[in-house]
Amino acid sequence: MHAFRSQTCAELTKANVGETVRLSGWVHRVRDHGGILFIDLRDHYGVTQVLCDPDSPVFAEVENLRSEWCIRIDGEVKARDESLINPKLPTGEIEVFIRDMEVLGAADELPLIVFGDQEYPEETRLKYRYLDLRREKLQHNMILRSDVVASMRQRMWDTGFKEFQTPIITASSPEGARDFLVPSRQHPGRFYALPQAPQQFKQLIMVSGFDKYFQIAPCFRDEDPRADRSPTDFYQLDLEMSFVTQQDVFDTIQPVISGIFEEFGGGRKVDETWEQISFRDSALWYGTDKPDLRNPIKMQIVSEHFAGSGFAIFAKLLEQEGTEIRAIPAPSGGSRKFCDRMNAFAQAQGLPGMGYIFWRDGENGMEAAGPLAKNIGPERTEAIRQQLDLGVGDAAFFLGGKPSAFEAVAGRARTEIGETLGLIDQDRFAFAWIVDFPMYEADEETGKIDFSHNPFSMPQGGMDALDGDPLSVLGYQYDLACNGYELVSGAIRNHKPEIMFKAFELAGYGAEEVESRFGGMVNAFKYGAPPHGGCAAGIDRIVMLLADEANIREVIMFPMNQRAEDLMMSAPSEPSNEQLRELGLRVIPQD
Amino acid sequence: MHAFRSQTCAELTKANVGETVRLSGWVHRVRDHGGILFIDLRDHYGVTQVLCDPDSPVFAEVENLRSEWCIRIDGEVKARDESLINPKLPTGEIEVFIRDMEVLGAADELPLIVFGDQEYPEETRLKYRYLDLRREKLQHNMILRSDVVASMRQRMWDTGFKEFQTPIITASSPEGARDFLVPSRQHPGRFYALPQAPQQFKQLIMVSGFDKYFQIAPCFRDEDPRADRSPTDFYQLDLEMSFVTQQDVFDTIQPVISGIFEEFGGGRKVDETWEQISFRDSALWYGTDKPDLRNPIKMQIVSEHFAGSGFAIFAKLLEQEGTEIRAIPAPSGGSRKFCDRMNAFAQAQGLPGMGYIFWRDGENGMEAAGPLAKNIGPERTEAIRQQLDLGVGDAAFFLGGKPSAFEAVAGRARTEIGETLGLIDQDRFAFAWIVDFPMYEADEETGKIDFSHNPFSMPQGGMDALDGDPLSVLGYQYDLACNGYELVSGAIRNHKPEIMFKAFELAGYGAEEVESRFGGMVNAFKYGAPPHGGCAAGIDRIVMLLADEANIREVIMFPMNQRAEDLMMSAPSEPSNEQLRELGLRVIPQD
Repeated sequence: MHAFRSQTCAELTKANVGETVRLSGWVHRVRDHGGILFIDLRDHYGVTQVLCDPDSPVFAEVENLRSEWCIRIDGEVKARDESLINPKLPTGEIEVFIRDMEVLGAADELPLIVFGDQEYPEETRLKYRYLDLRREKLQHNMILRSDVVASMRQRMWDTGFKEFQTPIITASSPEGARDFLVPSRQHPGRFYALPQAPQQFKQLIMVSGFDKYFQIAPCFRDEDPRADRSPTDFYQLDLEMSFVTQQDVFDTIQPVISGIFEEFGGGRKVDETWEQISFRDSALWYGTDKPDLRNPIKMQIVSEHFAGSGFAIFAKLLEQEGTEIRAIPAPSGGSRKFCDRMNAFAQAQGLPGMGYIFWRDGENGMEAAGPLAKNIGPERTEAIRQQLDLGVGDAAFFLGGKPSAFEAVAGRARTEIGETLGLIDQDRFAFAWIVDFPMYEADEETGKIDFSHNPFSMPQGGMDALDGDPLSVLGYQYDLACNGYELVSGAIRNHKPEIMFKAFELAGYGAEEVESRFGGMVNAFKYGAPPHGGCAAGIDRIVMLLADEANIREVIMFPMNQRAEDLMMSAPSEPSNEQLRELGLRVIPQD
Repeated sequence: MHAFRSQTCAELTKANVGETVRLSGWVHRVRDHGGILFIDLRDHYGVTQVLCDPDSPVFAEVENLRSEWCIRIDGEVKARDESLINPKLPTGEIEVFIRDMEVLGAADELPLIVFGDQEYPEETRLKYRYLDLRREKLQHNMILRSDVVASMRQRMWDTGFKEFQTPIITASSPEGARDFLVPSRQHPGRFYALPQAPQQFKQLIMVSGFDKYFQIAPCFRDEDPRADRSPTDFYQLDLEMSFVTQQDVFDTIQPVISGIFEEFGGGRKVDETWEQISFRDSALWYGTDKPDLRNPIKMQIVSEHFAGSGFAIFAKLLEQEGTEIRAIPAPSGGSRKFCDRMNAFAQAQGLPGMGYIFWRDGENGMEAAGPLAKNIGPERTEAIRQQLDLGVGDAAFFLGGKPSAFEAVAGRARTEIGETLGLIDQDRFAFAWIVDFPMYEADEETGKIDFSHNPFSMPQGGMDALDGDPLSVLGYQYDLACNGYELVSGAIRNHKPEIMFKAFELAGYGAEEVESRFGGMVNAFKYGAPPHGGCAAGIDRIVMLLADEANIREVIMFPMNQRAEDLMMSAPSEPSNEQLRELGLRVIPQD
């Protein structure tokens, strides 16, 4: 017989009754039923009930067992009494009467109980991650993650992509966040950087004549932590293709992503058609470039109904250039209580408040309520109602000013309204491409022009477009929004050196700076670069959505805490003097 | 029609004759046949011949084309004249008459010609890697690598393994080489380390109750460069299993590795049975723990034939304790010229020389030649011949002393003999497990006991074995040798804290030091650790062997040079003062 097991803890059924078997696993829990000991023996695959009574030669040893001891047992498979069969367990028809036992690994007193649902502070969970990971939820999440990544790879291969590994110890990359630096021992005083993404390398792979690249790529950004972002390293499905348009990229990645959500989404609906929404429309309709489209609320411009109206605040506002009034329709939100609640929400977000109208049954049929309705009068109120297609029991909220000043709050209000009113379909993955991102933005104070997103995207209209107003130039750049998250981001790249230099010049970067910062890629473009484009999908976020988790640490095997520390491995730690000497570095004492 | 191509450059056949098509790719070369221009248009998939004469509306533009310009062409598919059909090319039956053309990416004068086989210095190849990668050999090697890794993954999944990603920015790991350090911005003065291997993490995954882990894992070692080793990062197929013996690990990985070699070995023979050779036997027979078993030469101890013999040097040597005489049989090496050559080889390796005997046809049948034979006389010479099973035309070489002093040279001599005599079967992948590595070794000068290989392996015999002579303790540790390379290395791990502390104590490490250096893992073992073991296979080396390359840089997309520099991306480079300030570091000026 094998040294540790003849079967796993998920395999034994009625068919094995009478056999002598060997199992290994962890003591999930021990129950003492009047001198008869029941052990739930657990391994990665399942649980088997093990039985011991004073007739067993190892009764004394079994009495000493505690939770989470790792043991090997030999015993005889017996059928359970009809009344004791557990139909929920694959092994629920049998139990194993124990005849021999070996402790493979004893356990000290546990800082975290594996059995059951007791909650623990995150610090405890991270320090004893190996115990937390034994619990059902994390076992499930990690297997889900592994299966998702495997399926992703399979889908990419099936689509004709090849996976290539790009360097991890390399040069600084221009992704906009902070690089992690790695001091060089062989070249003291000089540093490598860990890639924020394989952006330059995947573009170089295209210049090297490969056609379809992908990689489940580790990415490194020295960022201040957030719930949906790892503070150190994270993984992306990174891909790039040559000789493609934006639509080709969409047509390639959509089946991969939707296939994954269908395969692992637990039956939740996956949108079949993915709308393309311009960056500008997304801001207008949803107040964000990563809208949650499960929320049916779509904002609208209603300035005309307030211009010159009796509601002086908005009427006056509209006399300033660049201002707008926008409405957030709130179907079924038509009560003063709800409207007051949302008004308070707006105040908590730093606004003076949020005007509203709601419609109710009055003595003469439908009537519009709220101070705003009185101020602008019944005609304008009715015009608004018709534009927004609302009726009795509904409400609408209004925000005004320069869109850049209130758009984000409007987006959050939309979410709050949708969630509070239960308008969000929880059983759906709603996707949309956000397209036509502006290439440039002007600093509100200085007016200085800078790239608003990725400087390496191809401007729509090419060189000609760059001769006009920079602020009106759109890029072939796109994001995929799903349920309020940005899942994918990508672009058709600017592969022409002359257009690239011009694009950087508009943002105030001279040719010399471009050469020195991005020389590797820019030089390559001088030797016959193909048109190319691609995207990257955040794997941690995809798994989060599939696992229905709100915290990225629930889908990463060994995550850092929010202060970018590994409490289990004690990282970061102080280097030895020898190490610092070899690297030619000195630590500056902190105050 | 698609913006860039209706087909790839490998797709058009006679069936497409008459069609108007669109192709994109690189100008591989241009030939001018009396005013008719022939362009070999190349993309990742193949080459198509494009034709242009003065009748074409774009003749003038086509005349301007140079090698490696990236272009898009429209044209009509024509059948080639019977006499011009190229049966070696999938598209060899057709050509495309060009009607329209667009330059997608022009090229400056090329520092490296893609077409043909011209050789370039490695610095040029690395600086313009994107041009080098367009060449047929590197395109092939990269695709091979991608396919090998994909097949490996598939085989691991099919064997029931799950792939999990382990942290890359983490704590120092105890693999014996130097760590790359990463300064922490959020904790100035403290450093992360990049993992030399996911050793501790994969063991923690086992402690976490997962059963079969693998990962195509990036590994980081700050090592001085070698031809078969990347100076910064490299990839391993890393795996670990719970509740297994050494034989289980062998039975798991052998089908994966041999499957890969059968799939991608280009028909070369793959050993079906993998011998298990003890570390000690391997040193004796082959002079190395990574023997090339394609070489049939097996060394033997022949001390008895020299003890008290007339060959005073060896006879005297054997009077010292711990000395031996070993023979390297050299079938077909029986000529004075060859024997002198090997003697010179030994001298070049720093030995005084290498004694030899060779056998030839003499006047009275077979005779033994060489000074050694004369010194020890015919009887001893014949006994040696019989022991080594040699005959006319063969030779044997002899080395003596303490094995540790000459074993490595003996191994190199064996290789030299095998190669020079053409004894090595070039069409075979020869595998053997090297097992029973000693746990400890004594420093030759100080006598201090230290670990000879991995300190985390389980000593054979467990705790009891550690109570005896440390130098006689063997570990459950193993390597896989293939054609002279170490392809795989692994162990059954020491999962019992008490045995681990004892094992470290023997090597002079106190409990406190073990806790502080390997606390993450040692603490975990206190909470019910399962027996586990695994191994890691070097992916770069496997691909090297399959691609028949001697330099690892031929199978890595963007390799560092031997000074650990990336010439294309200019890494490492000097950090900005702002970066150093944020990290709380100062660079010490070098002399």
